[in-house]
Amino acid sequence: MKATVLVTLKDGVLDPQGKAVQQALSALGFTGVDGVRQGKYIEIDLAEADPVKARHDLDAMCRRLLANTVIEDYEIDIAEG
Amino acid sequence: MKATVLVTLKDGVLDPQGKAVQQALSALGFTGVDGVRQGKYIEIDLAEADPVKARHDLDAMCRRLLANTVIEDYEIDIAEG
Repeated sequence: MKATVLVTLKDGVLDPQGKAVQQALSALGFTGVDGVRQGKYIEIDLAEADPVKARHDLDAMCRRLLANTVIEDYEIDIAEG
Repeated sequence: MKATVLVTLKDGVLDPQGKAVQQALSALGFTGVDGVRQGKYIEIDLAEADPVKARHDLDAMCRRLLANTVIEDYEIDIAEG
């Protein structure tokens, strides 16, 4: 079973990486970029076939390793089949 | 206008970062993780209101800065409104 996890910074948390991208885009001549925020996209291939158990496992993985829940949010998406 | 860009490694390109995450999950006791691949998730806030022009700009941004098209694919998603 394939799943994806999106890890993004919470609102209000400074994002220097996004700021750097924004400045680089501006330096390349792209005007009208009002903001950039960068997160992580993680594709996970699981042996588990039960979507409920898979989501439970993924939630634990996010809390323990993939996301820093003090400053980051995460979103789990499980592909059917 | 808000847009998101997903940058992922092409199939066949080695992903040491994903491999490290996979090994860390295994070390934490999460069995049954068959593979992990990590990509970038970028949220961009654009002044441009026309979705067609916005997509054109974003495509140029991806090719020039956000993605290394030799080894990475990108996917642009534009939020309406």
